[in-house]
Amino acid sequence: MRMIDLIHKKRIGETLSKEEIEWMIAAYTNEEIPDYQMSAFLMAVMFQGMNKEETSYLTLAMVNSGDVIDLSLINGITVDKHSTGGVGDKTSLVLGPLVASVGVPVAKMSGRGLGHTGGTLDKLESIPGLRINIDNDAFIRQVNETKLAIIGQTLSLAPADKKLYALRDVTDTIATIPLIASSIMSKKIASGSDCILLDVKYGDGAFMETKEQAEALAKAMIEIGQSLHKDTRAIISNMNQPLGKAIGNNLEVKEAIATLHGQGPEDLVDLCLQAGAIMLMQAKKVSNKEEGMKLLQLQIENGKAFDSLCAMVKAQGGDIAYLKDPSLFETSKEIIKVVSPKTGYIKNMNALDLGIVSMKLGGGRETKDSIIDMSVGLIVEKKLGDYVREGDVLVKVHTNTGLSTELKEMIADSYLIIDQKVEKEPVIAKEIHNVF
Amino acid sequence: MRMIDLIHKKRIGETLSKEEIEWMIAAYTNEEIPDYQMSAFLMAVMFQGMNKEETSYLTLAMVNSGDVIDLSLINGITVDKHSTGGVGDKTSLVLGPLVASVGVPVAKMSGRGLGHTGGTLDKLESIPGLRINIDNDAFIRQVNETKLAIIGQTLSLAPADKKLYALRDVTDTIATIPLIASSIMSKKIASGSDCILLDVKYGDGAFMETKEQAEALAKAMIEIGQSLHKDTRAIISNMNQPLGKAIGNNLEVKEAIATLHGQGPEDLVDLCLQAGAIMLMQAKKVSNKEEGMKLLQLQIENGKAFDSLCAMVKAQGGDIAYLKDPSLFETSKEIIKVVSPKTGYIKNMNALDLGIVSMKLGGGRETKDSIIDMSVGLIVEKKLGDYVREGDVLVKVHTNTGLSTELKEMIADSYLIIDQKVEKEPVIAKEIHNVF
Repeated sequence: MRMIDLIHKKRIGETLSKEEIEWMIAAYTNEEIPDYQMSAFLMAVMFQGMNKEETSYLTLAMVNSGDVIDLSLINGITVDKHSTGGVGDKTSLVLGPLVASVGVPVAKMSGRGLGHTGGTLDKLESIPGLRINIDNDAFIRQVNETKLAIIGQTLSLAPADKKLYALRDVTDTIATIPLIASSIMSKKIASGSDCILLDVKYGDGAFMETKEQAEALAKAMIEIGQSLHKDTRAIISNMNQPLGKAIGNNLEVKEAIATLHGQGPEDLVDLCLQAGAIMLMQAKKVSNKEEGMKLLQLQIENGKAFDSLCAMVKAQGGDIAYLKDPSLFETSKEIIKVVSPKTGYIKNMNALDLGIVSMKLGGGRETKDSIIDMSVGLIVEKKLGDYVREGDVLVKVHTNTGLSTELKEMIADSYLIIDQKVEKEPVIAKEIHNVF
Repeated sequence: MRMIDLIHKKRIGETLSKEEIEWMIAAYTNEEIPDYQMSAFLMAVMFQGMNKEETSYLTLAMVNSGDVIDLSLINGITVDKHSTGGVGDKTSLVLGPLVASVGVPVAKMSGRGLGHTGGTLDKLESIPGLRINIDNDAFIRQVNETKLAIIGQTLSLAPADKKLYALRDVTDTIATIPLIASSIMSKKIASGSDCILLDVKYGDGAFMETKEQAEALAKAMIEIGQSLHKDTRAIISNMNQPLGKAIGNNLEVKEAIATLHGQGPEDLVDLCLQAGAIMLMQAKKVSNKEEGMKLLQLQIENGKAFDSLCAMVKAQGGDIAYLKDPSLFETSKEIIKVVSPKTGYIKNMNALDLGIVSMKLGGGRETKDSIIDMSVGLIVEKKLGDYVREGDVLVKVHTNTGLSTELKEMIADSYLIIDQKVEKEPVIAKEIHNVF
């Protein structure tokens, strides 16, 4: 087989076979195909696309380029959740304990944040002592004992995807659904869980701008999952504003703890109960969503969901004193308030800009090598549809480096306040349980 | 400037500026832009194209990536001819002497052959002693003294084009008019002649399959030439059959010599007289084509065109005894005849396959490193529209390695013979003197 022939086939709009895609990914991973041929192929895909079958073959070829985690020693049906990333998205820190507390094993491999979206691993590491590098045997033992582990992805997971993603990043070949979907799904499938729930976010703080784009991506990923015999479902959720109130690492951990104590912000609670209930359905723990939501609500009220978080943190070496008394967490030097310039209803919020402000305060990574300040970030006091009076606090800025005029304006400008009443949008726009 | 931004602009269909294209080509030539970014850009061009201005900027940037030959010391208006390549195309060997014999300076840099198309340099080198590597000063001196020189391209000519072409060759990004046109024109413009006549061939033995594609390529090249203030014109010529009768290196030289003696095959003579007349118009030697053709016909009859070839060969160290007595040229061990299986009129010929047969006999290069056998090739005795009887010789195969059944069948199958009379097609389908 010759790579130039596969480039040609794709360029003229033909379909690649399973054998061709398998050969291409294996040869690229082994450095038998040079980057300059692969980038030409990827650009051809930007214009010609890939059909369902090609996308599945590509995903499977990337899965098979590295290790596939064997979770068969875990008792019960394992469920995993993946979010496409957003601002203030601490869902995993709530959902994991919530679902695990019912006895459904959650064996999760997570990523770090880059740019305006935070990463679950970074947030977890704000808990002193907590380890995210855990070997496979200990990972499986922990899930069997506590039902929950959230650890870092091993380097050997889907190495073809890592190599391809790095190339796509510098050749403007990121933004096409078959490549995004196969990249995400290759890592999820290699992570080994039986079921996958995808939280595909849309809005200005998300990767997909519109609900329709998010739905198309979700469907492509479900198609891949189903073709590889994984129970894969999706929720399409709103990222036109930050999720919850907290943006920033230990601020988000504290909000997750509060949520597990029944004191969470409405949108985060709603998202976690609904998503958690779907995960319980996938694990065949409940037969419908209402039953699942009731069960999870109970786990919050009886304290078992919070206990589950403590058990995980303890198993990974973290200091649970911080969970029991969140005031122990490191705090920023000062908290600066940004107030509303007028009275009215909040019509628009720019989640992306708020994420960027938090990153620039030191709460996120501008480059892969940035060091994160765990204590900084934003508490968003007013959200879409809220009524505010002139002078009301919109955002509390937790900072160790003051607040420049530029960042202050970015926060103020991220709000659009109008005189007319504004309807609130639901956090989950749609659920997709099946695409066939 | 960042290459990824230029890739993005082209991918979404925007137009690149002069500054952007200049920067890109300079940075690529200096190896500041990696091949994998350039190949992604080239693939985006395959889908989005380049407009007239972008194509001109690209050409000029490639010209400026290396040396531009200064022909200002040559007396008179210099004219150059470029053929897009075909089977049996020995036009330069006839046209050069023909035009030079009238006093119009022809300072030509030529290329080698690859695949089924032969190269002028290879053909010239079948004349013992002839040198094609000549330095600039000697080149200019020779043109001033003999009005004609055909030499090899110096490596320093449009190095950006060489680097880009090598990348396009392995990434399936050859076949788009802006890239083909800018590649050809960058070399022609860097070669320094005042006027350029393009012989753009169409048909199964040519790079462009249809007349329409050939015309589109010709127009794109003329647009580039005119935008850079070079008198650039084109003929669109037929390559649905080999040009003349001879295919193969010294066989073609012998046919060129015969043509200069007034004994050439009809199509080759017609092409050379018409193209030469246009070159004389470009050099302002004649005011119309008829006048030019008459003048050139005279140069054949009075022997001056042949003298011109002798003068050039002598100046470049070649043994003109071979020109005066072509029977001195090395001959092949045997000549095998392929005869017609039936009686009728020749409706189709596959020039490409005949070119491939000649290459496989050793007359052309399968790879860049192949060594050429100067004495082998084909003499095509019957051409489109000819009436043949069963058993008549179609092709005489000059070979040093016999004739395999496979090659014999390729020759026989390249002819389609039917009962009905077939109209002959003219060798020149169209002339383009101006696109504005």
